[in-house]
Amino acid sequence: MRICHTLLSLVLIMALSGTAWGEDVAVSGATEDCLACHVDVTPGIVADWKNSLHYRTTPADALQKPDSARRVSAKTIPQELADVTVGCAECHQLNAAEHADTFDHEGADVHVVVTPRDCATCHPIETEQYDRNKMAWAHTNLNGNPLYRQLIGVVNGPYTFSDGRLTVSTPDDRTNAESCNHCHGTAVQIAGTVTRDTSQGTMEFPVLVGWPNQGVGRINPDHSRGSCTACHTRHMFAVSTARQPYTCAQCHKGPDVPAYKVYEVSKHGNIFSTHKQDWDFKAVPWTAGQDFAAPTCAVCHISQVVDAGGNVTAQRTHAMNDRLPWRLFGLIYAHPQPKSPDTTVITNQAGLPLPTELTGQPVKAFLIDQAGQSDRTQTMQGVCRSCHASGWVEGHWANLENTIHQTNAQTLAATRIILQAWDSGVVKGPGAQDSPFNEALERLWVEQWLFYANSTRLASAMGGADYGVFADGRWFLTKNLLDMAEWLEHRRPAAK
Amino acid sequence: MRICHTLLSLVLIMALSGTAWGEDVAVSGATEDCLACHVDVTPGIVADWKNSLHYRTTPADALQKPDSARRVSAKTIPQELADVTVGCAECHQLNAAEHADTFDHEGADVHVVVTPRDCATCHPIETEQYDRNKMAWAHTNLNGNPLYRQLIGVVNGPYTFSDGRLTVSTPDDRTNAESCNHCHGTAVQIAGTVTRDTSQGTMEFPVLVGWPNQGVGRINPDHSRGSCTACHTRHMFAVSTARQPYTCAQCHKGPDVPAYKVYEVSKHGNIFSTHKQDWDFKAVPWTAGQDFAAPTCAVCHISQVVDAGGNVTAQRTHAMNDRLPWRLFGLIYAHPQPKSPDTTVITNQAGLPLPTELTGQPVKAFLIDQAGQSDRTQTMQGVCRSCHASGWVEGHWANLENTIHQTNAQTLAATRIILQAWDSGVVKGPGAQDSPFNEALERLWVEQWLFYANSTRLASAMGGADYGVFADGRWFLTKNLLDMAEWLEHRRPAAK
Amino acid sequence: MRICHTLLSLVLIMALSGTAWGEDVAVSGATEDCLACHVDVTPGIVADWKNSLHYRTTPADALQKPDSARRVSAKTIPQELADVTVGCAECHQLNAAEHADTFDHEGADVHVVVTPRDCATCHPIETEQYDRNKMAWAHTNLNGNPLYRQLIGVVNGPYTFSDGRLTVSTPDDRTNAESCNHCHGTAVQIAGTVTRDTSQGTMEFPVLVGWPNQGVGRINPDHSRGSCTACHTRHMFAVSTARQPYTCAQCHKGPDVPAYKVYEVSKHGNIFSTHKQDWDFKAVPWTAGQDFAAPTCAVCHISQVVDAGGNVTAQRTHAMNDRLPWRLFGLIYAHPQPKSPDTTVITNQAGLPLPTELTGQPVKAFLIDQAGQSDRTQTMQGVCRSCHASGWVEGHWANLENTIHQTNAQTLAATRIILQAWDSGVVKGPGAQDSPFNEALERLWVEQWLFYANSTRLASAMGGADYGVFADGRWFLTKNLLDMAEWLEHRRPAAK
Repeated sequence: MRICHTLLSLVLIMALSGTAWGEDVAVSGATEDCLACHVDVTPGIVADWKNSLHYRTTPADALQKPDSARRVSAKTIPQELADVTVGCAECHQLNAAEHADTFDHEGADVHVVVTPRDCATCHPIETEQYDRNKMAWAHTNLNGNPLYRQLIGVVNGPYTFSDGRLTVSTPDDRTNAESCNHCHGTAVQIAGTVTRDTSQGTMEFPVLVGWPNQGVGRINPDHSRGSCTACHTRHMFAVSTARQPYTCAQCHKGPDVPAYKVYEVSKHGNIFSTHKQDWDFKAVPWTAGQDFAAPTCAVCHISQVVDAGGNVTAQRTHAMNDRLPWRLFGLIYAHPQPKSPDTTVITNQAGLPLPTELTGQPVKAFLIDQAGQSDRTQTMQGVCRSCHASGWVEGHWANLENTIHQTNAQTLAATRIILQAWDSGVVKGPGAQDSPFNEALERLWVEQWLFYANSTRLASAMGGADYGVFADGRWFLTKNLLDMAEWLEHRRPAAK
Repeated sequence: MRICHTLLSLVLIMALSGTAWGEDVAVSGATEDCLACHVDVTPGIVADWKNSLHYRTTPADALQKPDSARRVSAKTIPQELADVTVGCAECHQLNAAEHADTFDHEGADVHVVVTPRDCATCHPIETEQYDRNKMAWAHTNLNGNPLYRQLIGVVNGPYTFSDGRLTVSTPDDRTNAESCNHCHGTAVQIAGTVTRDTSQGTMEFPVLVGWPNQGVGRINPDHSRGSCTACHTRHMFAVSTARQPYTCAQCHKGPDVPAYKVYEVSKHGNIFSTHKQDWDFKAVPWTAGQDFAAPTCAVCHISQVVDAGGNVTAQRTHAMNDRLPWRLFGLIYAHPQPKSPDTTVITNQAGLPLPTELTGQPVKAFLIDQAGQSDRTQTMQGVCRSCHASGWVEGHWANLENTIHQTNAQTLAATRIILQAWDSGVVKGPGAQDSPFNEALERLWVEQWLFYANSTRLASAMGGADYGVFADGRWFLTKNLLDMAEWLEHRRPAAK
Repeated sequence: MRICHTLLSLVLIMALSGTAWGEDVAVSGATEDCLACHVDVTPGIVADWKNSLHYRTTPADALQKPDSARRVSAKTIPQELADVTVGCAECHQLNAAEHADTFDHEGADVHVVVTPRDCATCHPIETEQYDRNKMAWAHTNLNGNPLYRQLIGVVNGPYTFSDGRLTVSTPDDRTNAESCNHCHGTAVQIAGTVTRDTSQGTMEFPVLVGWPNQGVGRINPDHSRGSCTACHTRHMFAVSTARQPYTCAQCHKGPDVPAYKVYEVSKHGNIFSTHKQDWDFKAVPWTAGQDFAAPTCAVCHISQVVDAGGNVTAQRTHAMNDRLPWRLFGLIYAHPQPKSPDTTVITNQAGLPLPTELTGQPVKAFLIDQAGQSDRTQTMQGVCRSCHASGWVEGHWANLENTIHQTNAQTLAATRIILQAWDSGVVKGPGAQDSPFNEALERLWVEQWLFYANSTRLASAMGGADYGVFADGRWFLTKNLLDMAEWLEHRRPAAK
């Protein structure tokens, strides 16, 4: 490789070697080659990585830990990786042949996009679980559903107005990447190469389309699904990041899925905000009451939780649906979770790619049954019972199920209004070969379920009632019905 | 009592005894009985309680502290409680005869719902003050006011749509519990018993209706009002929780009363967010400038505040109205605070249960007078003067009073529109024996005062102007008037 | 000067002297005179100041620091200030003759409002830079622009409704001070004097109009522009405050400029929220990766950032525009930054005081050119490259520029609707000598650019996509177009 431009970099590397990787930390030669320049070129991520467990531990050492404290789930780890710390080369040069983004970089086969398949080398169980999670399928489930594509189209535009009429055309890929696919994930593809003048001389790099992106359902250049860094933020990859609600808030704060906003006004969120600095977000296993005094998102949905005696209250899972009997948000009606994380397989009786009929009946063939719901309810309630007595848990759950029932009924009322509008021809819907989302009244209908019913349910599920009344909940759920009914009554004659 | 199932629990208890309550901490025998199982059954709250002062101190020791540092306000404490730490039994078995929720649990008379009357054993002054606080009456004042019940009805639904018409029926109790009464408090009642299989065998428990709930005005099974754990979060009951704004945010963040959102964008909120980790939230007394560098909600509204010399700037009060000359939110117009915390006694000249006429005139007989307002203003301004010179305080106050005047005027403009709509019959109001809240235009009128005027006033009161302009303040306060006036102009002919 | 009332104060001062300024800290005699009373009268700010560098360091010592670590930018500092700590008198008695707010206070010439010109004594480069910042001109640029004054008028009201018509009159100064000018800054003026009974006896003070205020473009009693305490919060004046996003959130959180809300849901914001307690917000110079693991607002827009070797990645600037090629918010269309921070000089071809035509074309004579934009882009991208490779940075930038293009197009569509409404006479606009902001449809048009296009752009610029889809972004950007078009179609006949 070329000589780095600045002598300073070499001095720095030597300084770092003396105190850190040269002696105490087994950095591989390949990674040392990377660092020789990158400590200078991208100093921030090098410093960040030096704060990581990846830097301080080797996989061989990680394998020695007792099962309850292990963070690697592989039984064995390839010999060439086992005794070196997990550095640049260990991830960015792994599985090179499978990566369409691999390129020759200073003599090494490097790829830009590290994927779940790469991470599975040491973390195979988490990767397998995650692939059973709808989140891994978030790009596919959204972009592969013709009905949702219609929604994307009218939300992202672009619109033009001329001759007194609005016209919408197909959104461009960059707009979709900055909108829906930012969280759902892009499909990262290779579009030739580009030559850049760098501080180390002229170099050639691949051009990646759909990059940067860290969406949870990203389609990667090795054909894998997902992005571990969506939650395990690079380059520290700390469990203490993923366990805090700020990580989930990246994608779960808007009015369509305001989980974080609900959490913030819940008693649990209050305890977290007030006392988090006294908690241990790094401990594995993670002990209820001792390491944390109230759940974060991860406690209820993902983490292995144990009691003070080390008994496992809930097994770790990266398939969040394992603890979820109901699908509360994202669709027109709340319904039992789908059986498969790939929801593009679902079709209702009316032929629409939806898990319920437009009038709310669940499409049972594709959804888990009552026994499946009951299993998941038991798992989730097990976490609740770490701190709450049975009467508390049962009362809370009955309230939530009542909220599901009531909000579905308010969505049905809105749907009956839009169905009447479609039937009477005042609004053009699917029956008229038109999108169900592209007129003003249809937008109100979408807000009924996508914003207000969802928000009300999340507020009930997580005990953050303040968000479910006036913030984006029942006030708007019922006001919107009045607005829709009034629109239908007053606009119909004018539009005919 | 039965033998616990797991040997582990016994080991744990012994371990805890060795280091903690067995030697250094005077846990009562009755509480040790509880812990014998509950360290295993609900480990989270046992661990949480072990972080509390209740666990580490006995009432007798607490009584020894100098007045300024005391957290108990009782002169004497019953002998049987004085020399043991405040554990499970000391609260959940107290006043058993008065509690309709008392049941036989493993040989002990236990009640689920600990109430202000229970807490008053050691904290009588706080309990007495709190009962003079409108918050203690929050359930009663809301649910006992026929006008507000109409509002609850149209907000919580449920609505159905058939034959081209929306119809609303009475909301069920669980919906109200998850909506208004989550913060206002439910009325907790007993509805028979239930038998459960538990890890300790089959047991019988009371069935509580309106549970779980920790609303500030909860009606308890011992007929007391309120819930101390709304702010003094169980089972740590830390003053450091109640003193942080996250506690208040549980119920004061939505657009009807966005105090927390205003605080967040105020200079005070900025200082809190930036420097809170360096503050002492546990100190009693609480010294301005030394223990905290900017007020939290508690500083201005509740806490005893002293200067570096120990002089009391403001006396502690759990009747927040003691420092509040104006009632800024919740009602149609801002007005002087009511004399009684029980606002169900109020009737205006038009016979409506409101503290002002519909056109804004305060109903003086039920409200404090100017002298009373002046006293409260002086108390609040005393807190301001810990850091601000008189010119600053007077300028701030003049701005606030101007905002009260101006926002009341903008509510009056909206009210004149709705009055004209009612008079002309295009909207059916109280004069036509109809709810004033159940039509689309009436919803806009409610938003004028409940959201926009309130938000603008809170933004002015707490120096968080960013929230009071475009977030939910003056932009919408005036835009809403244009929308209402336009509705009246365009819809009237169509509706006739 | 008079004897303080309480003996306690003297004791306190002696105690403080013993431990602090009497021995180790060189407090001036003039400041000791202030403190003699103010430790008692305003104890909070005295305690706050004692936590400041101003208290612990003298300017002479500050001048000894190496350039990279210096916080004072003056080459020399007046002898009378150099060897004493920066206390009350050093700021509040400085430049007395230039201050219209100077008054005789206990024998000293004191002014209330400390201004950038005062701060420039030690921090001249920062003051000079800040005056090139549009923020210093925020009062002038808003209040000196006749078009914006029309917007202020209709937003702040007040409106009255009588005889079926809404009428708006001119907002009063206190309302403007609590609304737009809270952040933009008031013009602080002197209106006579007032006599107050104080704890130290009867005293006379100046009456300040437009006070309190700490808006970024405040017009001061010494005719200077700006308020350093807007960000460098008094009386600690800590760089650690200004470097945290809570400071910026004071004015950049509402829907017109939701930078903080976007940051919160960005990956950068997540890292900040999760790990900030481990960062060093006080270090000068500020080292990427070492002192902080993700940028705060200050990192990208203001701070001097260095790498681990001390190489400067970005020079400190208090003229934020130095790193900004585009003006993303506040105006109808995103456009290149204006050349002058005084934007009252700008007029478009149609004669309106706007930097673009109503149809979006930039008014090039007043805006920086492509070369100027390119320079600023390079500066900003230099900060990105501390952690991100070139492919990442270029992809991000291309997405942002696409978002600018697309959101401007969606604003153009809305503008074509309002232009047609004006042309047809159904809405009265500038052509009919009427305000472009005072009718309901015009309000929707303003929300298109002021809320939705702005929010979408900020979400793209800062990687907080969740805010730019459903929160206040593309969903509303396109829904609003449908609402506007529908209004035009249905209301036109009725209004004729």
